[in-house]
Amino acid sequence: MNTMNTIECARNKIASPLIRKISRLECQDINTLSKNISCGKTVILKNKIHNLKKPCAIGRGLRTKVNVNMGASTEVSSIKTELKKLKISIDYGADTVMDLSVGKNVRKIRQEIIAHSTIPVGTVPIYEAAQELEHKRKNLFKMTKDDILEVLERQAEEGVDFFTVHAGITKEIIKKIPYKKRIIEIVSRGGAILANWIIHNNKENPLYEYFDNVLKIAKRFDITLSLGDGLRPGSVLDATDEIQLYELRKLGQLSKYALERGVQTIIEGPGHVPLNQIEKNIKMQKQICHGAPFYVLGPLVTDVSSGYDHISASIGGALASYYGADFLCYVTPSEHLRLPSIDDVREGLIASKIAAHAADIAKGIPYQIDWDRKISQARKSRDWTKQIKLSIDPVKAKRYRSQSKLQESSVCTMCGKYCSLKLIEKCF
Amino acid sequence: MNTMNTIECARNKIASPLIRKISRLECQDINTLSKNISCGKTVILKNKIHNLKKPCAIGRGLRTKVNVNMGASTEVSSIKTELKKLKISIDYGADTVMDLSVGKNVRKIRQEIIAHSTIPVGTVPIYEAAQELEHKRKNLFKMTKDDILEVLERQAEEGVDFFTVHAGITKEIIKKIPYKKRIIEIVSRGGAILANWIIHNNKENPLYEYFDNVLKIAKRFDITLSLGDGLRPGSVLDATDEIQLYELRKLGQLSKYALERGVQTIIEGPGHVPLNQIEKNIKMQKQICHGAPFYVLGPLVTDVSSGYDHISASIGGALASYYGADFLCYVTPSEHLRLPSIDDVREGLIASKIAAHAADIAKGIPYQIDWDRKISQARKSRDWTKQIKLSIDPVKAKRYRSQSKLQESSVCTMCGKYCSLKLIEKCF
Repeated sequence: MNTMNTIECARNKIASPLIRKISRLECQDINTLSKNISCGKTVILKNKIHNLKKPCAIGRGLRTKVNVNMGASTEVSSIKTELKKLKISIDYGADTVMDLSVGKNVRKIRQEIIAHSTIPVGTVPIYEAAQELEHKRKNLFKMTKDDILEVLERQAEEGVDFFTVHAGITKEIIKKIPYKKRIIEIVSRGGAILANWIIHNNKENPLYEYFDNVLKIAKRFDITLSLGDGLRPGSVLDATDEIQLYELRKLGQLSKYALERGVQTIIEGPGHVPLNQIEKNIKMQKQICHGAPFYVLGPLVTDVSSGYDHISASIGGALASYYGADFLCYVTPSEHLRLPSIDDVREGLIASKIAAHAADIAKGIPYQIDWDRKISQARKSRDWTKQIKLSIDPVKAKRYRSQSKLQESSVCTMCGKYCSLKLIEKCF
Repeated sequence: MNTMNTIECARNKIASPLIRKISRLECQDINTLSKNISCGKTVILKNKIHNLKKPCAIGRGLRTKVNVNMGASTEVSSIKTELKKLKISIDYGADTVMDLSVGKNVRKIRQEIIAHSTIPVGTVPIYEAAQELEHKRKNLFKMTKDDILEVLERQAEEGVDFFTVHAGITKEIIKKIPYKKRIIEIVSRGGAILANWIIHNNKENPLYEYFDNVLKIAKRFDITLSLGDGLRPGSVLDATDEIQLYELRKLGQLSKYALERGVQTIIEGPGHVPLNQIEKNIKMQKQICHGAPFYVLGPLVTDVSSGYDHISASIGGALASYYGADFLCYVTPSEHLRLPSIDDVREGLIASKIAAHAADIAKGIPYQIDWDRKISQARKSRDWTKQIKLSIDPVKAKRYRSQSKLQESSVCTMCGKYCSLKLIEKCF
């Protein structure tokens, strides 16, 4: 039984300890959960060999999950900083982290993150493959399918729980699509690496051509594949265009193909999408991808919010999740400007958590509104200790309160003696 | 002609300099603008005697406007700080400010704000009326209609451009409504003051009973009345309840009554509203209030975001504006915790500006998307100077960029040499 994958357990109506644990955590009965896993509408992120305190289920009827992107770059690289980012992510309630490191120490950083993480860890293996070519002083274009599969194999053995694979960028789309209609052709790092490779070699994307090999590795370790949107729009003006939809359809086919072979997948989505196109984007994804969980990056609802892209993303994320997105990739204030600092990680995560929670209330996910009820009751009775404890960031709420010089401790400095709550306490 | 009000000009098809200026600023032809003003679907905020550099129109087909609440409290009071808040509000693109001061120096602070503001200034005159009673060492309950009307008259003469009047809180609603169904009965400061007064005196709300006198003052100075929602929900669990709707219907009647008498009004709205109730709230307001401009406070889409309520409000505000709200009252990170600092004002304003802009793009307000096009083009060409200049907060964007230690100046520290934009520059 232990050697069975999550999908196999679900299909055989076997309530594995993992399925039972998720059922309990998510307040969803085992039958419903198993049914949704069987048909690919829910996934559980957990590498078979990763000893994970908090595995994470994503999908139908479940609480919206939030991912934190972290990792070093070729410009800034510190294991210590990345581990601090991991700690703050876990402390502030991230459901998963993705290590997107490039540059020095890629492997060491990933191994440390996997060792210290209590939540599922995802990666984009093509980054390490590109990196290794560079170490060997070889050109990126010389990358072979074996280079890529070796990295996948190694990361699987290390315990990575989910992989982003940009398998939907085919040679056909790279050759045929009218890029001139776009303001920014490609904004995905993985997408840009693969597009370059395809154009230079005039060959098919190895992740697409050898998708069966990718599936084999994923199946062996029960790794979930996050089918990457390497051609996502990078401007609200490029949203929902022909290129994006071509790739989405391809991801839908791959998702179905993987499901038939017992591999769990989620679908990555844009990016930059104006408010009025979000509902359509989610509904199309759900239709095209047979209800597979949707993992959206933001989306940002405007391109102008550099320095505050976490806010733009929280607007888009809340709406996306309300219409059915299952998994939000956070965006930090530093997006488009720099590698996020530890503070940026916290700010981005909290913004995304607010979006997810707001959507969960609106969707009626069981028990989610209880949090709002409790804090509102504490607010009414001006129980400041309780109100602070129930805030999304008790540390910041406490700091704000403690910095206030109060003459009257039962109110706050906003209204002082004209506190509406105090004024009405004997009214009703 | 100069003695005519904006509504009178519009109704008589007279293109006053003010109407011409707004038509130019908003790229809306004079006929459409005048028609909308005539029927109360658009208002222009400007006291006849206030020399105002940037009057502000709010309503149908126009860019969504953003208001900054400022002002001292009984706990914290500094004219200097308030003027700094005003400056930062204007610098970062606020369309209006409201001085909500209570406590010491109320009059002085207001006068200074009016003197220094290039944008319309609003107030809640009941605050000063309450304050004056206290100065006279009298109980709040002893407030008379003359006390209130005197304050209105005086503030009008000082040049206040719009007044919040909580005229919809009638004796009937205070007596009859089942408050026990609410978690928090009243969260509006003005609402709490008036509810107290009504209960204690067992008399009708003077702002309702003497609404004709209020209209006379407003008409004389061409002041817009913002019909306050003193009974707005203060928790997502209280949203869209019987109490809120009773007051909204009352405000609809008052708005119609004012319009017939040549006084411009806008309608204030909640507050705390779950995502899935926002569309309904906006559509009801527009229907009940004959299309009068809707001025929403937030709305917050969850109660748990203390310390980050600006983010919760930007989610709600973006959606509200997309569905038809015309005017967003910002919310700062300090909401529910303390009087906002200068930094809080900036953070709150920018969050609201992002929400308003995102909605304006989605609604197709003319020329708004141009900003996104320009910054995306700068982003594509990695023109960092231009990209920073076009950011919603160039100071923050520049700081983020300049703190980065770059080995390679054409990229950023996020992706370094694996910058997708750089990778693809020779691809297409």
